[in-house]
Amino acid sequence: MSKELIFGHQSPDTDAIVAAKALSYLENKLGRDTEAVALGEPNEETKFVLDHFDEPAPRIIEKASAEVEDVMLVDHNEPQQSVSDIADVTVTHVVDHHRIANFNTAQPLFYRAEPLGCCSTVIYKMFKENNVEIPAKLAGLMLSAIISDTLLLKSPTTTQTDVDVVKDLAKISGTDYEAYGLDMLKAGTNLASKTETELIEADAKSFNLNGSTVRVAQVNTVDLAEVFDRQAAFEAAAKAENDANGYDLFLILATNILDSNSELLVVGAPTAPVEAAFGKKIENNRISLPGVVSRKKQVVPPLTDAFNA
Amino acid sequence: MSKELIFGHQSPDTDAIVAAKALSYLENKLGRDTEAVALGEPNEETKFVLDHFDEPAPRIIEKASAEVEDVMLVDHNEPQQSVSDIADVTVTHVVDHHRIANFNTAQPLFYRAEPLGCCSTVIYKMFKENNVEIPAKLAGLMLSAIISDTLLLKSPTTTQTDVDVVKDLAKISGTDYEAYGLDMLKAGTNLASKTETELIEADAKSFNLNGSTVRVAQVNTVDLAEVFDRQAAFEAAAKAENDANGYDLFLILATNILDSNSELLVVGAPTAPVEAAFGKKIENNRISLPGVVSRKKQVVPPLTDAFNA
Repeated sequence: MSKELIFGHQSPDTDAIVAAKALSYLENKLGRDTEAVALGEPNEETKFVLDHFDEPAPRIIEKASAEVEDVMLVDHNEPQQSVSDIADVTVTHVVDHHRIANFNTAQPLFYRAEPLGCCSTVIYKMFKENNVEIPAKLAGLMLSAIISDTLLLKSPTTTQTDVDVVKDLAKISGTDYEAYGLDMLKAGTNLASKTETELIEADAKSFNLNGSTVRVAQVNTVDLAEVFDRQAAFEAAAKAENDANGYDLFLILATNILDSNSELLVVGAPTAPVEAAFGKKIENNRISLPGVVSRKKQVVPPLTDAFNA
Repeated sequence: MSKELIFGHQSPDTDAIVAAKALSYLENKLGRDTEAVALGEPNEETKFVLDHFDEPAPRIIEKASAEVEDVMLVDHNEPQQSVSDIADVTVTHVVDHHRIANFNTAQPLFYRAEPLGCCSTVIYKMFKENNVEIPAKLAGLMLSAIISDTLLLKSPTTTQTDVDVVKDLAKISGTDYEAYGLDMLKAGTNLASKTETELIEADAKSFNLNGSTVRVAQVNTVDLAEVFDRQAAFEAAAKAENDANGYDLFLILATNILDSNSELLVVGAPTAPVEAAFGKKIENNRISLPGVVSRKKQVVPPLTDAFNA
């Protein structure tokens, strides 16, 4: 059996990095030969997590097919979110918690998705099903991924399973998850040291919505003014990304992780489906979205419906 | 939580019928409200199985959206193999053992696929993971599905997991699986009483291969002469199906289940990719395929490659 690479999506967040490490540990215990890699540098939050648990950052790859024939995907399945030469390798395993879109295979494969708050929660279940023990350090990393994806269990994507798994992983890793989680989330909102381009590319995903390429970035903060004091510069950065990459529309979801409210900055066209999606007019290129914290659950589905209407 | 329907693919085989019943039993034990239905009449083999274990045939549906909003798919995911109004309902669960193709969702869902010989083998694993006991009668049905899909564990799709699960299900159901399995497979090869159209539609699937709609039927027999004594009539039936349904190409895989050899009857166009797929010339509309018994593993992948070449 030849070696396989395991990786999460481009612009990796904490779950994309950690889920690859967790699945690689599990698959190697089950007798496969895998290496967890990443499609980009860890973001500020992930660096805090890796430092805290004394875990090295994964090797970053640009392409997969030069090294391996087979790969495993975590935390994504859509090809445009994956490695650039995904069409040249065979996907043997997917573990995910997103919708399935434009993912096609020639052969049967292992595919495990559940509508849970975090990919690492799905992998936790797979450890249990296979009777493989989770080491304390890995438990701390997986705990961090769930806290990241669920904004400390406050996002509407959070399920009872995520809550139960967080408690068990906190116990295994000996972590006070509420105090640690707040420190971790705050570490990811250090906006002052970053350029607008860095901030909007740190956690961004592309979606093909009825023919339009829509880029949706999320920027977490503890104060929305931190973002909108720099609104003109964010707009310029988004426009430059649209021009350079052929995106039709760039949406920046700025989220206050303390009070769970967001403001959406809209750059590009068409804007009518965005207004239709949220039932509000865009003013000063912005739409206020109180109570919205989840790109996956509260932003992409209404956008998808509006673009297809 | 509103009721959901669970069904396998059109032209259901034993696994499509049984996997729906097995998943429905499991999901109902887990607290959901589901009903196993089917997209067509049970075939001769499935009737033998249902009779043997004194189990009623499932209700047959033409459409799903008039009754429910949500459905679960077993043993398939490709929309053209599913209920005709699949676009009008939400798929919440898929359990499958096939490739993934043209399957897209707006929302995260539960998706469980493994490259095992039978969908019922995947569902057996889910019973174990959820600590739900399999009743003796359901064990007999699931055993039958695995025997059917793996041709009594002889198909190249058979994995060690299928073998282990067959042995456990035989024990739970108190079945001598080798003797029963042979009787069951023979019951499915009663060709004399059926018209050619009935025989080619009893286990047929459509595939979109690089723009061509290719229908691949499998007809099991204990003597290939039983099929090819009627070759002209099979060709006429396939041509009529092509004309009526817009298929470009109709392939009839006639398989001798005793010696694991097949002969492929080719009706329609293009034929060049079929010859390329198997590295042989079509003679008298036929290609001899010794050792080929699996549509999924030995027919569709080389066809897919040849059509995309």
